[in-house]
Amino acid sequence: MTLNPATPAFARALRDHLPDRAFREVTPAYLEEPRGRWAGHAGLVIAPETTAEVAAVLRSAHAARIGVVPYGGGTGLVGGQIMPEGPAPLLLSMERMTAIRAVHADENVLIAEAGAILSDIHDAATAVNRLFPLSIAAKGSARIGGNLATNAGGVNVLRYGNARDLCLGLEVVFADGRIWNGLSRLRKDNMGYDLRHLMIGSEGTLGVITAASLRLVPRPAGEGTAMMIVESPAAALGLLSLARDLMGEGISAFELMHANGLHFLAQTLPDIRQPFDHAPEWFVLIDVGLAHGLDPATALETLFERALEAGLVSDGLIAQSEAQRHQFWEVREQIPEANRRIGSVSSHDISLPVALVPEFITRADALIAGIGAFRVNCFGHLGDGNLHYNVFPMPGKTRADHLAERDRVKHDLHDLVHQMGGSVSAEHGIGRLKIDDLERYGDPVKLAVMRQIKTTLDPNGILNPGAVLRQV
Amino acid sequence: MTLNPATPAFARALRDHLPDRAFREVTPAYLEEPRGRWAGHAGLVIAPETTAEVAAVLRSAHAARIGVVPYGGGTGLVGGQIMPEGPAPLLLSMERMTAIRAVHADENVLIAEAGAILSDIHDAATAVNRLFPLSIAAKGSARIGGNLATNAGGVNVLRYGNARDLCLGLEVVFADGRIWNGLSRLRKDNMGYDLRHLMIGSEGTLGVITAASLRLVPRPAGEGTAMMIVESPAAALGLLSLARDLMGEGISAFELMHANGLHFLAQTLPDIRQPFDHAPEWFVLIDVGLAHGLDPATALETLFERALEAGLVSDGLIAQSEAQRHQFWEVREQIPEANRRIGSVSSHDISLPVALVPEFITRADALIAGIGAFRVNCFGHLGDGNLHYNVFPMPGKTRADHLAERDRVKHDLHDLVHQMGGSVSAEHGIGRLKIDDLERYGDPVKLAVMRQIKTTLDPNGILNPGAVLRQV
Repeated sequence: MTLNPATPAFARALRDHLPDRAFREVTPAYLEEPRGRWAGHAGLVIAPETTAEVAAVLRSAHAARIGVVPYGGGTGLVGGQIMPEGPAPLLLSMERMTAIRAVHADENVLIAEAGAILSDIHDAATAVNRLFPLSIAAKGSARIGGNLATNAGGVNVLRYGNARDLCLGLEVVFADGRIWNGLSRLRKDNMGYDLRHLMIGSEGTLGVITAASLRLVPRPAGEGTAMMIVESPAAALGLLSLARDLMGEGISAFELMHANGLHFLAQTLPDIRQPFDHAPEWFVLIDVGLAHGLDPATALETLFERALEAGLVSDGLIAQSEAQRHQFWEVREQIPEANRRIGSVSSHDISLPVALVPEFITRADALIAGIGAFRVNCFGHLGDGNLHYNVFPMPGKTRADHLAERDRVKHDLHDLVHQMGGSVSAEHGIGRLKIDDLERYGDPVKLAVMRQIKTTLDPNGILNPGAVLRQV
Repeated sequence: MTLNPATPAFARALRDHLPDRAFREVTPAYLEEPRGRWAGHAGLVIAPETTAEVAAVLRSAHAARIGVVPYGGGTGLVGGQIMPEGPAPLLLSMERMTAIRAVHADENVLIAEAGAILSDIHDAATAVNRLFPLSIAAKGSARIGGNLATNAGGVNVLRYGNARDLCLGLEVVFADGRIWNGLSRLRKDNMGYDLRHLMIGSEGTLGVITAASLRLVPRPAGEGTAMMIVESPAAALGLLSLARDLMGEGISAFELMHANGLHFLAQTLPDIRQPFDHAPEWFVLIDVGLAHGLDPATALETLFERALEAGLVSDGLIAQSEAQRHQFWEVREQIPEANRRIGSVSSHDISLPVALVPEFITRADALIAGIGAFRVNCFGHLGDGNLHYNVFPMPGKTRADHLAERDRVKHDLHDLVHQMGGSVSAEHGIGRLKIDDLERYGDPVKLAVMRQIKTTLDPNGILNPGAVLRQV
């Protein structure tokens, strides 16, 4: 399938269908990705204002066989928003479709356009005393269309699920410009195949999400946050199990962190307040949101006491104020930025069967030590079995010193994950970075079926060419 | 697309691939459906024992262009398991693939074959102190493969979601016999398109589910059940909102029922204990499962007191024992059987935006009254906006007396549902009964995309021919 570049002539033809303000300058900001590993290119940047304009763009691109890269907040970590080679594509930015179209507080439903920024959706939910629980470090710039296209995860998956679990319906423009209006407010609807979940997580390769109907949840009556020091990842799992016994679904987040996260913060972001005098090897952040009649601080104290008795924790801190809760969370949320500043040799967004996480960490650490001298910062969403197992140079070295080992680190780690029944793309998606992994580890029948679906829905292959599936 | 009948010659050829015990007698039980409205036919009934045998059957049927009707517990209410006409199909019964392949209690995961009966899965979860929350009236005979193929709903959707929300992974045989091994135990996995949700709810038309990885949940520390009398559906919604404010996710079920449900039970199943001396016009069943530190009975009393103050309820009963909880639930669970014995003119499995349910009931009642004299038994899962709005003859009449009005009742009601943004198939699926509805009310682009997917995954159209999509 050969695509054509998005040329000035194509842009001129598009002007028949779109207002001038839809045409944006091709600035470098559209062509970079957060870790600065690759740059993309684009012949044209279009920012439509309506679903009909999106349809007009796709209809034209489909007819002219021009690649279209859907673009949200540009925060993706696997290059799904970056096209580094091939005929220059049209970059379709959702930055002007940012409306919150409706809020149905009494139904816990909010309808947003794809370009709405995640934190703006949080604010709109808060304004009606509700919660939109999808939360990721990039929430201030990520757009909901991208969150859905990549099925974003984040810190509240344990309680509320991934992005897909928070979506009731979609509006989608298909490759040929057809518009599916599926913005349902319904909780139950078995009218035919579930195209919603097929689109969610397809990373813009099967259609362009233009709006979504989102599920809100009631705000818990009381919230609380604690940090507890655990001896090992196994103890952390025991603590999670105890916490669930005591508080059921009340556990909103359960994040495992490692001493290296604190060391990296101290080194790169010294203004972040360190929670402990001496960085413990392993510790967890626990966030709870409880119903009326339960005091979060008391519940966390009870948990701590029981965990102490059971030998699962050795020390802990329970936030005494909203300001302190914020401080605890800032530690967790700034770790990715600290990692970026240190510069990883290789980063891995992986998941495992939850019970196998401790064994995995032990085996992975041994595997990495066998390759060379590295620092590992392993942290993540323990309750989901989702780790960010990131490998860094020793102090005084840089990632450039380890280019020779980099592929082996990634390859051997991913092999181990696969061997243990895990996934090498837990929450970031495939993008362009993990296509080899998908081909290596993915079920071959699933891959073949994915290709069949791609071919039937996007026969000219214009949608996000080279993302998820290799171009053939 | 012309299909061939499943002939004795085809059966003989299949014997090369399957043991004798896979060949079953074509008995009437396979060809009936619960409401006795239509009968199906089949040239052959095959009950494979392994996924490889399922693959062998499909490979042969695909090559010979013979229709295959996947068959679970036979409890579907929309004729998805019944092929009334056309070339005699092969009925593929999952009755011998009933194994619980694995239970990972510490991960809250259970892996079952498609033929496992829902209540057996409940028992296996209970045995490890967990809950598999999917619960429907037919749980004693429905099989999990069918529950997933139809995305079954039931009484716990409010808290735990539909069947699709309780499935982590699938094993599926596609039309041409290819096997997708997607039995993931992972909570997070973004490795390519989500085929799982495409298969769930596709009613056996895109592939045959042979096994599933299911999500278990911790058993709540304490459970309680109440029945409360409400003045109206609007008051019931107010009560639900209050209950959520007080107990958050602790509300496991919130079922609206009408006096006619009690009248029908009294008439047809007099052994069922009536909860009230005089049947109230509207009442709800509330089931809660709470964390440690909260007593369900106390929480339900608090709810009742607050609701009384707010004028939302006039009377109520809180179950004082497990036996009484069971009694309350039996009322709810036997209403469908009472309905069956009375014999409806027309039954409707519908959903609406939750906040519009009261308005819908008022308008629907007026609409029905305008058609003629009927009794309406409207009940269902109020928290999901899902009603079973069923229309019955007046005492002394039968459904046969109303054949002339039947289509109008259904048509006008469905029009009203659609006009109010609802779905005319909330939890039972499309099957063969609601194909006209899907074509009339479904989004045309969605329908076209569904056909594209069907054609690409089942080019010979052998899988459950005439279900969901009309045969062309």
